Amino acid sequence: MEKILWVDMTTGRVEMEALPEPYQRLGGRALTSQLVRDAVPAEADPLGSENLLVFAAGLLGGTTASSANRISAGGLSPLTRGIKESNAGGNTALYLAGSGIRAIAIKGRSAGLRYLYVEGERAELRDAADLAGLEVGEATRRLKSVHGEDVGIIVIGPAGEMGLRAAGIANTDMDGVPGRYCGRGGLGAVMGAKGLKAVVISRRGFEYRAPTDPVLWKEANRRYVDLLRENPVTGKAMPKYGTAATLELVNELGGLPTRNFSSGSFEAADRIGGRAMYEIIKERGGEGTPTHACMPGCVVRCSNRYADPQGKLFVSPMEYETNTLMGSNLGIADFDVIAELNRLCNELGLDTIEVGAALGVAMEAGVLKFGDQRGAVQAVREIGEGTVLGRVLGNGAAVTGTVFGVERVPVVKGQALAAYDPRAIKGNGVTYVTSPMGADHTAGNTIVVKTDHLDPSDKAELSRTLQIKTAVLDSLGLCAFVRAVFFDRPEVVADMMTALWGERWTADDLMALGRQTIRTELEVNRARGFGPQDDRLPAYFLTEALPPRDSVWDVPVEDIDNFWRDL
Amino acid sequence: MEKILWVDMTTGRVEMEALPEPYQRLGGRALTSQLVRDAVPAEADPLGSENLLVFAAGLLGGTTASSANRISAGGLSPLTRGIKESNAGGNTALYLAGSGIRAIAIKGRSAGLRYLYVEGERAELRDAADLAGLEVGEATRRLKSVHGEDVGIIVIGPAGEMGLRAAGIANTDMDGVPGRYCGRGGLGAVMGAKGLKAVVISRRGFEYRAPTDPVLWKEANRRYVDLLRENPVTGKAMPKYGTAATLELVNELGGLPTRNFSSGSFEAADRIGGRAMYEIIKERGGEGTPTHACMPGCVVRCSNRYADPQGKLFVSPMEYETNTLMGSNLGIADFDVIAELNRLCNELGLDTIEVGAALGVAMEAGVLKFGDQRGAVQAVREIGEGTVLGRVLGNGAAVTGTVFGVERVPVVKGQALAAYDPRAIKGNGVTYVTSPMGADHTAGNTIVVKTDHLDPSDKAELSRTLQIKTAVLDSLGLCAFVRAVFFDRPEVVADMMTALWGERWTADDLMALGRQTIRTELEVNRARGFGPQDDRLPAYFLTEALPPRDSVWDVPVEDIDNFWRDL
Repeated sequence: MEKILWVDMTTGRVEMEALPEPYQRLGGRALTSQLVRDAVPAEADPLGSENLLVFAAGLLGGTTASSANRISAGGLSPLTRGIKESNAGGNTALYLAGSGIRAIAIKGRSAGLRYLYVEGERAELRDAADLAGLEVGEATRRLKSVHGEDVGIIVIGPAGEMGLRAAGIANTDMDGVPGRYCGRGGLGAVMGAKGLKAVVISRRGFEYRAPTDPVLWKEANRRYVDLLRENPVTGKAMPKYGTAATLELVNELGGLPTRNFSSGSFEAADRIGGRAMYEIIKERGGEGTPTHACMPGCVVRCSNRYADPQGKLFVSPMEYETNTLMGSNLGIADFDVIAELNRLCNELGLDTIEVGAALGVAMEAGVLKFGDQRGAVQAVREIGEGTVLGRVLGNGAAVTGTVFGVERVPVVKGQALAAYDPRAIKGNGVTYVTSPMGADHTAGNTIVVKTDHLDPSDKAELSRTLQIKTAVLDSLGLCAFVRAVFFDRPEVVADMMTALWGERWTADDLMALGRQTIRTELEVNRARGFGPQDDRLPAYFLTEALPPRDSVWDVPVEDIDNFWRDL
Repeated sequence: MEKILWVDMTTGRVEMEALPEPYQRLGGRALTSQLVRDAVPAEADPLGSENLLVFAAGLLGGTTASSANRISAGGLSPLTRGIKESNAGGNTALYLAGSGIRAIAIKGRSAGLRYLYVEGERAELRDAADLAGLEVGEATRRLKSVHGEDVGIIVIGPAGEMGLRAAGIANTDMDGVPGRYCGRGGLGAVMGAKGLKAVVISRRGFEYRAPTDPVLWKEANRRYVDLLRENPVTGKAMPKYGTAATLELVNELGGLPTRNFSSGSFEAADRIGGRAMYEIIKERGGEGTPTHACMPGCVVRCSNRYADPQGKLFVSPMEYETNTLMGSNLGIADFDVIAELNRLCNELGLDTIEVGAALGVAMEAGVLKFGDQRGAVQAVREIGEGTVLGRVLGNGAAVTGTVFGVERVPVVKGQALAAYDPRAIKGNGVTYVTSPMGADHTAGNTIVVKTDHLDPSDKAELSRTLQIKTAVLDSLGLCAFVRAVFFDRPEVVADMMTALWGERWTADDLMALGRQTIRTELEVNRARGFGPQDDRLPAYFLTEALPPRDSVWDVPVEDIDNFWRDL
């Protein structure tokens, strides 16, 4: 029987409970969202004691399946003030699920800083006063010096402790590097507000979950791996160029956020894309590698390790979203500067998307100039130092825009747009405005689909299907890149579920889980007062044509307002 | 036939139009709110081109009646993001209405800074480039040097030009001193966003409006003035101590905001109250006076002129709300420091309530210490200098709380509470949460009623009646202190309306106007997505008992949610 670990930060009480019946077939995002709906009062303050922070493994978590061990973090978001789930790779979900724990649900608020140590089914809160204010890397080192290398660590940096709304939550990868981020929505600030610095999950007590039907598992898993390997994206482009492979494509489509979303194409795109990154990493050699698995057993290996000119590991991973929001969006074309910004965010515990967007807004306000590399690095440093400017930027793009009186602020529901300008990649615009998660490409990224991205007419249907399928992946603990299999051959994934759980799962069952998950999330947001007026892009997207395609946001408002009808 | 003056800042077009029929029996707040509802799209950005900024005289404006020439400013608020009306005394509504103009409605947005000059029924936009960045006093002097002393001036300071959400709009008083503020809701930022620095209304072309029935007018007006004079508040306390007379009372009731609303009583209340102020002004003599009329013909004369130790005019007026929010709320008990903060705000064009609350929040965050007089003065100076800290504070208490991660932020709908802690003055708490205006005591100030202010049971009914009656006063251009007459003897005011307009007005007609006004305002807010979740005090008011009465906010939530039913 799998467990749920309840942690009350106020009382210090830690309780391991058999997973109650209604939650037994929920995992990942389906589980975090359901728990938030069930256990958090509608009027709760995201940074208050009543909010719940949930970490959950997916329904395929703890197994040997490739790309199946994403960790979901869920709760109310201090950025959007609605529900949020943000998931990441790494080793933490594997160790959690492999210890028989589906989820950790954290409520209340501790007076002093604590961390949670989990070993098998034993768990306890420990004092973390000596970790206070430590950067993510140093905190991870200290925790490993106490608990050894064989651990998965979920940890926040100073940004989360400071309650900054751009704070994310880091997870260790297979090498123990804490670079896998539940980045979006400010959940790092929620963890900080609870007084929780880290969760350490020991490998002791861990074992891979055994499928109920090993024969079917082996067979389905083989089909699954073959499909991943055969697919040109997951089998070829991803291992080589990583997510940055997308950059040249989006630039070509005229949707690459450039200088605070004022252009969709960056003159130096070739210097910050997947190919350029591959060449630099290859050339430098040493500890760098363009191909790297963030999760054990992953065959996609889209991650990378970026080395400095001396070949020493500098930051891992560098991703498309970061290269764009902290590159073209700031008018910066130097990979080492982007890497430095990335590294700083990773150490401080910050979402690179939100901070990149905030910097873009600050640049538009004239606080610093577009292309000011030193200024950008210094500004991110100030977030860690807690200067007034640092606190403004660290609270994200919307707050930065409000403070500096900027009109062109690329946010929906208070959260920064990801690295696709919705005027050129219209399906992602639909996802930004309709997802209960706020502007978040991970909720349904239409860039993966072959379509005329400028044509508004069919993008609602496209985004809707994608969002439901993505909710399935998020609930199973599967990486978004498993869409390469799941979209065309959902029965393969259903068969894996059947083999693991010993009860029949069909593709329809999976889709029902995705729909149910989004329904639950919409319910939370509606109870918190969200309405149609929140499902809108800022007005300038409708009126300012985006070069070079001169496109505007023109998806019909009825498509948006009717979007989730009959879900 | 009265006129409405339409000003399109985008095109520079100025049009004098006969007041359309549906608006002919609307004035002041009733008119500004109706125009906002009719002419502003529901999704408009308060600081965008689509918002409307309306200045309107009340239905009794332009007459010789005492306390009847308040000017209403209305539009969407960048603070609350809902509808806003804020009114002030002074000479501007008198000159406006006396020139035959009921309202000025300003739309669009100018590229360069302009001011509007009105003389009789002629009006034009003029270049104001040389007024850019000027403080309110200096801008007023320059405009007078061009147009002479016989003008009424509506003007913003640097804060409004900078788009800061705590910016108000100043109006000249009888002496031409621009100290009468439409302070709340950030309407100064709306004016700044439109590129409008000032409105200058010449006395040329002005004449008092003649009542249709002079005999009835004279008779009703005599009853009205006698009642104002006989009333102990408007006849005695107000002329002597001004609004600051309230301070000792609220302190005694345990509802005086002290150190960011952490206590309801201030140990040095006697040093910042009405009596103390009276003594200082009297002692210093010179240009100071404790009794001063802000509007021509006012018999209440609650205003004052505060002189420096040398007897030179330093600031006018000093009011209860300022003395509290910038005094006890900051732990400051020195009148000259409060006067300095007040003067700075008046010059920069800032709402002293919003800035006082923001400073209190910043003090709680440790940005500066409670009681730090120099620090507080310096911080307000920084607003004018546009430093990052200045911009944060200048955007109000909610933004300040977000940036600095403060949990105890006294706001409703993004706007700071006025100088009554709702845990001790519960009727005002009801007004804060239910008024379409956000936390604004002027929408229905229950402190004027003899009641057990700690008892939550009857406060919904009390606030409701008061809010409707206040909406009547606001629509007639009457000062809030006319409640001394209107609440007990509404027929006196109705008779004045009958005499002026030559058609029968009853007390019921007046109440219907008040109800209709609030209905219109609620409609605007609902269309913009406001719901029950917005009608709430921050959670800590429900849980943290307020010393010295140890009271919490306990007005039943049903009383709030059913508040405007059957309006």
